[in-house]
Amino acid sequence: MARSVEAVAVGTEILLGQIANTNGQFLAQVLAEHGALHYFQVTVGDNRRRVVDTLRQALSRADMVITIGGLGPTQDDLTKEAVAEVFGRDIVVDEPSWERIVSRFRGRGRPTPNNRRQAEIPAGAVAITNNHGTAPGVLLEADYTPVGAATAVPRVVICLPGPPNEFKPMVSGFLAEYLERWAAGPDAVRTVLQSRSLRIAGMGESEVEHRLRDLIDAGENPTIATYAKPGEVEVRLTAQAGSPAAAAALLEPVEQAVRERIGAWVYGTDADALGGAVLGELAQRGLTLAVAESCTGGLLSERLTEAPGASAAFVLGAVTYANTAKETVLGVQAALLQEHGAASPETARAMAEGVRLRSGASIGLGITGIAGPAGGTPAKPVGTVFVALASGEGTWCRTLALGGDRAVIRWRATQDALVTLRRYVLAGKAALEG
Amino acid sequence: MARSVEAVAVGTEILLGQIANTNGQFLAQVLAEHGALHYFQVTVGDNRRRVVDTLRQALSRADMVITIGGLGPTQDDLTKEAVAEVFGRDIVVDEPSWERIVSRFRGRGRPTPNNRRQAEIPAGAVAITNNHGTAPGVLLEADYTPVGAATAVPRVVICLPGPPNEFKPMVSGFLAEYLERWAAGPDAVRTVLQSRSLRIAGMGESEVEHRLRDLIDAGENPTIATYAKPGEVEVRLTAQAGSPAAAAALLEPVEQAVRERIGAWVYGTDADALGGAVLGELAQRGLTLAVAESCTGGLLSERLTEAPGASAAFVLGAVTYANTAKETVLGVQAALLQEHGAASPETARAMAEGVRLRSGASIGLGITGIAGPAGGTPAKPVGTVFVALASGEGTWCRTLALGGDRAVIRWRATQDALVTLRRYVLAGKAALEG
Repeated sequence: MARSVEAVAVGTEILLGQIANTNGQFLAQVLAEHGALHYFQVTVGDNRRRVVDTLRQALSRADMVITIGGLGPTQDDLTKEAVAEVFGRDIVVDEPSWERIVSRFRGRGRPTPNNRRQAEIPAGAVAITNNHGTAPGVLLEADYTPVGAATAVPRVVICLPGPPNEFKPMVSGFLAEYLERWAAGPDAVRTVLQSRSLRIAGMGESEVEHRLRDLIDAGENPTIATYAKPGEVEVRLTAQAGSPAAAAALLEPVEQAVRERIGAWVYGTDADALGGAVLGELAQRGLTLAVAESCTGGLLSERLTEAPGASAAFVLGAVTYANTAKETVLGVQAALLQEHGAASPETARAMAEGVRLRSGASIGLGITGIAGPAGGTPAKPVGTVFVALASGEGTWCRTLALGGDRAVIRWRATQDALVTLRRYVLAGKAALEG
Repeated sequence: MARSVEAVAVGTEILLGQIANTNGQFLAQVLAEHGALHYFQVTVGDNRRRVVDTLRQALSRADMVITIGGLGPTQDDLTKEAVAEVFGRDIVVDEPSWERIVSRFRGRGRPTPNNRRQAEIPAGAVAITNNHGTAPGVLLEADYTPVGAATAVPRVVICLPGPPNEFKPMVSGFLAEYLERWAAGPDAVRTVLQSRSLRIAGMGESEVEHRLRDLIDAGENPTIATYAKPGEVEVRLTAQAGSPAAAAALLEPVEQAVRERIGAWVYGTDADALGGAVLGELAQRGLTLAVAESCTGGLLSERLTEAPGASAAFVLGAVTYANTAKETVLGVQAALLQEHGAASPETARAMAEGVRLRSGASIGLGITGIAGPAGGTPAKPVGTVFVALASGEGTWCRTLALGGDRAVIRWRATQDALVTLRRYVLAGKAALEG
């Protein structure tokens, strides 16, 4: 059986919302990569009784407990004391750790008595070198008798410091190596969990599900799940196997089957960005793009250039916030702005056509509208956005009624522009007229 | 005694590290603002037995349990079933929720039988309207008998959906109102924790600390802490009191004292955006701004227009990715590009001057450089970025050597441009020449 790990983050500042527990996600990824089962993550404040209770519960249900934080020099930092209490150990000073702390301070003040606390570890534990801070980590391999149980079971406790710039290198370094050895132990059969996400834009979730229905229903290993996001659908395949290679071999044919059924609407995998994918599709076809933005304020350009290599197809982004800029940079007529207003289908069309002509790009996109919170009217409430596409074949404009706050409206407007562009590039003008 | 809340996030994807639990921090902040005690946050996977066990433990040690996630349409989404099991309730369809789901689908396909599961709630519970998604939340006020206890105790369970764009509005809206009423209950003595962050750009952390040293040392309630961020310093004041008004009264004089010592370098509070603050300072002085970006690809424009009201000072953003766009839109000379390269101080200066002249703005900013991952050379490695500012007084250019990946380099380059602009607007050209 694969071994299980429980993560315990210690820190009142997390429970007060003052800092985000970004370490939790990073640790979870490394655990998954190494095939460790991970059923619970618990965050507890700097309270000795509650930390002790949380450790006891974690040790009763997981083979390894990894604590995050609470190794600092102050009285609030009590993780090591709680571990010592749970295992009935004394606290002792680890002299090599103390020497490292003293030498770290050389030339910038002197360590305080509190820093000496950072060199303390439970008796019988081993200090783990921390190359990025004063607090060493702690490794304790010991037998533990769960409350109410008759016999002791072997357990591992690893205490790591909370600052991400100290925590992450120790997870990537010490912990990853330890997990390798641990998983290879005589009673351990590894289970590696590997996921792959296929990202789809331009096809709705119901159509995706319809095309994949039998695969989803039959999918046990890998499992297949769909997730709807604004303008996108994600299909996530997750395989479980004895090694990374075996997991990849399970994923491969199912990924191919999904791709065959969804075709070119799959734009990428995992963390691929839609903007970069669409620009790649333009470049493949020898097409270029220019965009003119008003209410999205540069976000569309930013998303198009998020991935490297944009210069192969992206010519110009014009953030024409002021009407004068729309006139001088894009050649939008003052009379048109006056008659229809800056937030109108007519202006969106003129922006798309103007940026296309002025830049010499094959395709122009124009976005204008009302991102809010002010500026809405009964006829054009906040969230009304016009997205126009101009090419040698003509100009099309979509009117969107978007929900959410200013940031959400801006993001969704750019998402619609990218999806519209992609539908046009992949399926031609029929896709915009349907 | 103040009442306690335990948060339970449900989702295997969190334990696999596929998504970050950003909801946890947001919830923690709102709980702290409302004086709710928050001793534990637990994350558990999509496994019914483990979710039930986790809920039982949470209900035995907290007055209110808030679940996050697991309200979607698939079989993996089992939070409501687990709540019903814990309280021995049936699952029933909430007809108004079902009608809302049907009407949400109108015009874009039809709800599936799975969507009907989203309208189900435990018998005796109340559905909470979700204005941003199909899954309603659930409120269940009921007595619960902890395992091993003789008598039942009153408990509240609130189930909220996992997507942050649905979760956050329901926390800020429904939950915040509910917490107000709940905390005002007869047996509740509140302890409210209120924080205020003062955001500083253009003054270094050591100077900020030097000016605030005695306040920081003396600060007990509110406490004062400084945090260094790229290009910014945050000073966080945290007060504890019996009511929001009392906490605010403690914060107020200390905030004033900090502002007196830091002066105009405080650009805002809490979540204020630097871009919007700088535009406000420009508008106050009757100045306008235009920016020309290459490697930052629109991010500077995006950050300037993130807050509403940008049109008072922001005239034009030009994302001149291609050299031809630098020539035609900004008037940068082809010979200059040829001689010095697109990523050079000379080009940055010409971009800043060009966008200023072409747009008629008082100040022009130009950014060009190498965001990577490719394109670096020994003389100009990845992270080399040139930031130029042009005004009627002259043109200045800074050469930056930024670390991090492409996204980090792009962000830091825009941060430097905003801080440079702010120093110029507040302190004049001497600030750029020092």
